[in-house]
Amino acid sequence: MRIIIVGAAGKAGQAVHQLMRERGHDIVTVGRTSGDVRCDISDEAQLARMWQQVGQVDAVVSAAGEVTYAPIGELSAADFDTSWKQKALAQINLVRTGLDHVPPRGSFTLISGIPSRDPVISGVAAATVNGAIESFVRAAAIEIAPRRINAVSPSVFTESLDDFGDYFPGFAPVDVADVARGFQKAVEGAATGEVIALP
Amino acid sequence: MRIIIVGAAGKAGQAVHQLMRERGHDIVTVGRTSGDVRCDISDEAQLARMWQQVGQVDAVVSAAGEVTYAPIGELSAADFDTSWKQKALAQINLVRTGLDHVPPRGSFTLISGIPSRDPVISGVAAATVNGAIESFVRAAAIEIAPRRINAVSPSVFTESLDDFGDYFPGFAPVDVADVARGFQKAVEGAATGEVIALP
Ligand SMILES: NC(=O)c1ccc[n+]([C@@H]2O[C@H](COP(=O)([O-])OP(=O)(O)OC[C@H]3O[C@@H](n4cnc5c(N)ncnc54)[C@H](OP(=O)(O)O)[C@@H]3O)[C@@H](O)[C@H]2O)c1
Ligand SMILES: NC(=O)c1ccc[n+]([C@@H]2O[C@H](COP(=O)([O-])OP(=O)(O)OC[C@H]3O[C@@H](n4cnc5c(N)ncnc54)[C@H](OP(=O)(O)O)[C@@H]3O)[C@@H](O)[C@H]2O)c1
Repeated sequence: MRIIIVGAAGKAGQAVHQLMRERGHDIVTVGRTSGDVRCDISDEAQLARMWQQVGQVDAVVSAAGEVTYAPIGELSAADFDTSWKQKALAQINLVRTGLDHVPPRGSFTLISGIPSRDPVISGVAAATVNGAIESFVRAAAIEIAPRRINAVSPSVFTESLDDFGDYFPGFAPVDVADVARGFQKAVEGAATGEVIALP
Repeated sequence: MRIIIVGAAGKAGQAVHQLMRERGHDIVTVGRTSGDVRCDISDEAQLARMWQQVGQVDAVVSAAGEVTYAPIGELSAADFDTSWKQKALAQINLVRTGLDHVPPRGSFTLISGIPSRDPVISGVAAATVNGAIESFVRAAAIEIAPRRINAVSPSVFTESLDDFGDYFPGFAPVDVADVARGFQKAVEGAATGEVIALP
């Protein structure tokens, strides 16, 4: 398959990229500062240009997105809004603008995260935008069929425990290699409207 | 209890207002175009002024919010963003800015809606922002305790079948009187972090 991976240089993205390459897929990598195509997917004009360059693909994979972690009393309206724009709306726009670039049975796979279902202190903006992504995926699935859409919703990455481990006391972490397998399941399988919770 | 009801003149809000009055509570109504206090809760400056006028309350109830219904291919990025701002971020900001106005055991009750869990054609923006609200509520609950927060998530209102019934084929509608009881349960009960699905 021809697969576009947005955020391919990130912690999760690198693992997804490696697995997809091992599986023999033809990969186009995208990021703001690296990749075959440079694009900030939170910018609609850049997204339009990206699709012109990329053309048709069998699968769209996103491992991108940034959210703000802070206690609720320290989160501003702008923190919620930026988290929405950078993680939820950016991925929603990737899907909206990509609909004509993906064939029937082709797929979109987005990334959310565990706080939407299992909240943590300082994770309320993350929970909010992850919940938005997961409900978007369930709802978009019934409209874009026979194209498919799913989300991978990981716990804290084993590889991110130094940065984020303190926010997730007692949570089972997930290796990015297992996150990559979640993406493989979504891309090579037949599911749609699913939130793949990991581990 | 002293209760502020945002959106008290709306379909759901009127029913909530009536039930809360019957229960003997002291009510402050809020809306953009009617109410004891005029405030657009999607505007941060107006929210700050509203809290100055309203002072302390035992419960904050919101039955406000607007979302765009359209097929996914006709929804623009602006439609998603406006739905986020008018329904999700507005209610999130109502909570953020109200934290110091609500005592321990006092409560916030927001409104979401069924498409986040049971999607419908043309309801993907609604699903997205309702999912955001519901995950916000679950996550905020663990941080704002002993204050409480819940969401009421209704099906299409019986009273709105003429406007929205076609979007919800075969869905059991819910009378706004039952929606009001959902708010009563959240306000007078002890639950927190709950999404009260109706019917
Ligand atoms: N780390 C964790 O433990 C964890 C756990 C659960 C969920 N998640 C979620 O998983 C996703 C990836 O996390 P990660 O730790 O792998 O992040 P990361 O290492 O920061 O990688 C993110 C990647 O996405 C790219 N990117 C970010 N915003 C972009 C945009 N607007 N347009 C295009 N590319 C963009 C970045 O590259 P450029 O900077 O070059 O654009 C980078 O390659 C995030 O959404 C995160 O919230 C992370
Ligand atoms: N109708 C349904 O079948 C249904 C089903 C499930 C969920 N819902 C949700 O329930 C909520 C209420 O629905 P409804 O049908 O009762 O709506 P409605 O009749 O339009 O009432 C909404 C009320 O909220 C006020 N309002 C709206 N935006 C506001 C803002 N930014 N600041 C302050 N007040 C604001 C409006 O008054 P002003 O215009 O004067 O501000 C109005 O009184 C909405 O969030 C809707 O999505 C509705």
